[in-house]
Amino acid sequence: MHEKDLDYQVAVITVSTSRYEKYGEVKGVENIPEDDASGKLLVESFDASLYFLVPDDVMLIRKAVFEALEEADVCMITGGTGLNPKDVTVEAVEPLFTKKIDGFGEIFRMLSYQEVGYSAILSRATAGIVGDKVIFCLPGSSKAVRLGIEIIKGSLKHILSHAKGMS
Amino acid sequence: MHEKDLDYQVAVITVSTSRYEKYGEVKGVENIPEDDASGKLLVESFDASLYFLVPDDVMLIRKAVFEALEEADVCMITGGTGLNPKDVTVEAVEPLFTKKIDGFGEIFRMLSYQEVGYSAILSRATAGIVGDKVIFCLPGSSKAVRLGIEIIKGSLKHILSHAKGMS
Amino acid sequence: MHEKDLDYQVAVITVSTSRYEKYGEVKGVENIPEDDASGKLLVESFDASLYFLVPDDVMLIRKAVFEALEEADVCMITGGTGLNPKDVTVEAVEPLFTKKIDGFGEIFRMLSYQEVGYSAILSRATAGIVGDKVIFCLPGSSKAVRLGIEIIKGSLKHILSHAKGMS
Amino acid sequence: MHEKDLDYQVAVITVSTSRYEKYGEVKGVENIPEDDASGKLLVESFDASLYFLVPDDVMLIRKAVFEALEEADVCMITGGTGLNPKDVTVEAVEPLFTKKIDGFGEIFRMLSYQEVGYSAILSRATAGIVGDKVIFCLPGSSKAVRLGIEIIKGSLKHILSHAKGMS
Amino acid sequence: MHEKDLDYQVAVITVSTSRYEKYGEVKGVENIPEDDASGKLLVESFDASLYFLVPDDVMLIRKAVFEALEEADVCMITGGTGLNPKDVTVEAVEPLFTKKIDGFGEIFRMLSYQEVGYSAILSRATAGIVGDKVIFCLPGSSKAVRLGIEIIKGSLKHILSHAKGMS
Amino acid sequence: MHEKDLDYQVAVITVSTSRYEKYGEVKGVENIPEDDASGKLLVESFDASLYFLVPDDVMLIRKAVFEALEEADVCMITGGTGLNPKDVTVEAVEPLFTKKIDGFGEIFRMLSYQEVGYSAILSRATAGIVGDKVIFCLPGSSKAVRLGIEIIKGSLKHILSHAKGMS
Repeated sequence: MHEKDLDYQVAVITVSTSRYEKYGEVKGVENIPEDDASGKLLVESFDASLYFLVPDDVMLIRKAVFEALEEADVCMITGGTGLNPKDVTVEAVEPLFTKKIDGFGEIFRMLSYQEVGYSAILSRATAGIVGDKVIFCLPGSSKAVRLGIEIIKGSLKHILSHAKGMS
Repeated sequence: MHEKDLDYQVAVITVSTSRYEKYGEVKGVENIPEDDASGKLLVESFDASLYFLVPDDVMLIRKAVFEALEEADVCMITGGTGLNPKDVTVEAVEPLFTKKIDGFGEIFRMLSYQEVGYSAILSRATAGIVGDKVIFCLPGSSKAVRLGIEIIKGSLKHILSHAKGMS
Repeated sequence: MHEKDLDYQVAVITVSTSRYEKYGEVKGVENIPEDDASGKLLVESFDASLYFLVPDDVMLIRKAVFEALEEADVCMITGGTGLNPKDVTVEAVEPLFTKKIDGFGEIFRMLSYQEVGYSAILSRATAGIVGDKVIFCLPGSSKAVRLGIEIIKGSLKHILSHAKGMS
Repeated sequence: MHEKDLDYQVAVITVSTSRYEKYGEVKGVENIPEDDASGKLLVESFDASLYFLVPDDVMLIRKAVFEALEEADVCMITGGTGLNPKDVTVEAVEPLFTKKIDGFGEIFRMLSYQEVGYSAILSRATAGIVGDKVIFCLPGSSKAVRLGIEIIKGSLKHILSHAKGMS
Repeated sequence: MHEKDLDYQVAVITVSTSRYEKYGEVKGVENIPEDDASGKLLVESFDASLYFLVPDDVMLIRKAVFEALEEADVCMITGGTGLNPKDVTVEAVEPLFTKKIDGFGEIFRMLSYQEVGYSAILSRATAGIVGDKVIFCLPGSSKAVRLGIEIIKGSLKHILSHAKGMS
Repeated sequence: MHEKDLDYQVAVITVSTSRYEKYGEVKGVENIPEDDASGKLLVESFDASLYFLVPDDVMLIRKAVFEALEEADVCMITGGTGLNPKDVTVEAVEPLFTKKIDGFGEIFRMLSYQEVGYSAILSRATAGIVGDKVIFCLPGSSKAVRLGIEIIKGSLKHILSHAKGMS
């Protein structure tokens, strides 16, 4: 099978304590809160079939990741990648990687620097392989998510075909 | 409180075995050795209130860091970030980070590459959060310190406001 | 001694399971398989005196590295740096580093991005110091190796003189 | 509240690929397979309210752990702690610990040595704190589980009261 | 020089948030608080020349360790080795070890088990080499400190002579 | 195949800088230096087919390990496990383990304690799986090697049958 015919399922996880306090646990793409612009953007851009809203909590983030990866091949997380003590998305997800994709965070910050200047260094955007699946961690802002979508669109099938040992 | 009104104290640590052999242990911004151009540059640029001169020694670097962070919110270290076996600043400081700021070293080397070409890869400049405080590790050369100052000026208040959980 | 007069020996290791299955274990620069364009390119560019062909196997890669570094000052590895489950060059080599040279992979991917776009993020090219010696890990494609050669030519003597404590 | 009045809920996870192939995914203490003597022993000894049967798979073990710890305060896992390449329970669970309890594995093996001699060294029994909860990993054999139960009974309330910051 | 003639200086650090709140920062063996039985026991048993009282705080524990090791060859810490979330002595100290002495914690817990049974597993007592110096971390209770003193008396000169490369 | 019929090859590595300076690199069981009592004891006890003498050097120890494991199923190392700064056997070998066998060091030190008392804590004896092979690291003294031989004889076939996925 050629890489361009590769079919895959996408899950989106929004990490946001404030929204979690407002809406409680949310599951399902049909239930995305109105005000979760970043989550919506990701779901629509990749035609995601799974959606989770979780608070900034290592265990709940990991739990959603495991539930997501049971069905999906790709998991995109938005939120919780900053330098605030409460930001634990990177802490929750990186120990699960079987291969870290250093280049994702690097290229993300390089391009982000061209958009926003030195503030680009505040983002801990990261990505990695977990078995034959892929996880991307993006900041919570719509602007950052838009940049992330562009990079992921340009590399995802290539990454997946490698992760699945197809090439 | 808004980020731009954020007040903070800065400590500067110069890591240099040759100067340490010449001047011994030095403390206090009023005692910076004449020939420590990089240390002076940092102290003046950030109106630092604390200064330490230490040799390339893991324990003495860490000791200065702990003394510095007792009073200061930001600690800037210059020297000992290269690939020489004696360079141990990164080894001394990174284990203390509660969050590593990958983007700092990346953007530093990206911009350094534009100035000096491939030699940029020799620098192990790095930065990280320790609790609600920040540490930056810069090379020893004045040129590198000047680049570091520019990047730090453009991101420090933003980083600090995150580290302190203000945003 | 000045850095530009520094003399050093280079070893090249090609990691390729398919070629290993075809040619078996190969040693010696005079025995490089015809179709190992990347290995040949590296050997010729750096006048390497040692060559090894090994499969994608952590133990065999490490064994070749140890044999190489007994005589050589620099070890360049091509192949096995991707995101395929079988790619284990990075896994085999990074635990051996006494200092990781983060900048090498970063600058490699930054320049690779200018050549191939977002696919640059798939490469886990890396480099590091092992004692007073240096290891570079490059992707298997000739294009990537050509980029790697350019970066290494521009920094190797500088890196080596540091690793050997000469400056 | 005094430690001896501490109330807690227990979850039991049996890790066994052969049983998973026979029974598929099993959940609920009322559905424990007849032949899962170790699981049954743990459930009965601690009046567990949750039970999971999972195969030797890092992701599925972790997923069960996260589901278990959402309700339970204590998670006991049996199976997958040996030296067989397929044994991955320790690999799945230890990265999740916030504090490793070194003494559990040590005392387990010391007492096991008195029962079975040098074979005791083959067990990688381990335990750790995850937030304010506790995970124990025991071998799969009934004999080992019986020893584990004795040790856990003698220390659990004490461990939990510490983990919960009560003493 | 023979091991038995080895001369060394000892520092004692008591980690106790409650006492720190009562007495503030305390330094000097002449100032040990009346109610710090464990600290006093250690100071008297080893004729310690330095004493520090610090709270359960990673940075302040490390700062005291660095100050202690500047003068002393041996640093003994009591308190903060349990499983309570506030217990961070092990977290503060282990990253500083150049060689961990696994056997210290093991033998401590083995002997403790003979005294107190299964509760022995709650202690994370540990020890390690830092350069040519030694750090011991003991629980806070007098009973545990007494056991620790016995083990340390029986091994310290031997450990120090090794750490200092004398044998 | 039953565990007791398991056939395996053994390699012995003696780590000793003083003997290396006297004899240079030594290979082959027929060339064991007269005064290497510990090496001889191991070779004879396990009918080893490979023998190496190497100095206390991380790279040379690892190189011997890789050469040994190409042919042998079991590698036993004697020497370099203490707390002297020059002791680097544990540092050389543990990063290569795919599964660490915590119980080996623990039981070794527990039994050693019964022989020599508190000095037992000075030994960093360790063991681990590397793929489907096993490495044991023992102290250099004949007494310690004799204890190690007893423990290994009592567990080796069991360990190997697990490592090879036979049970």
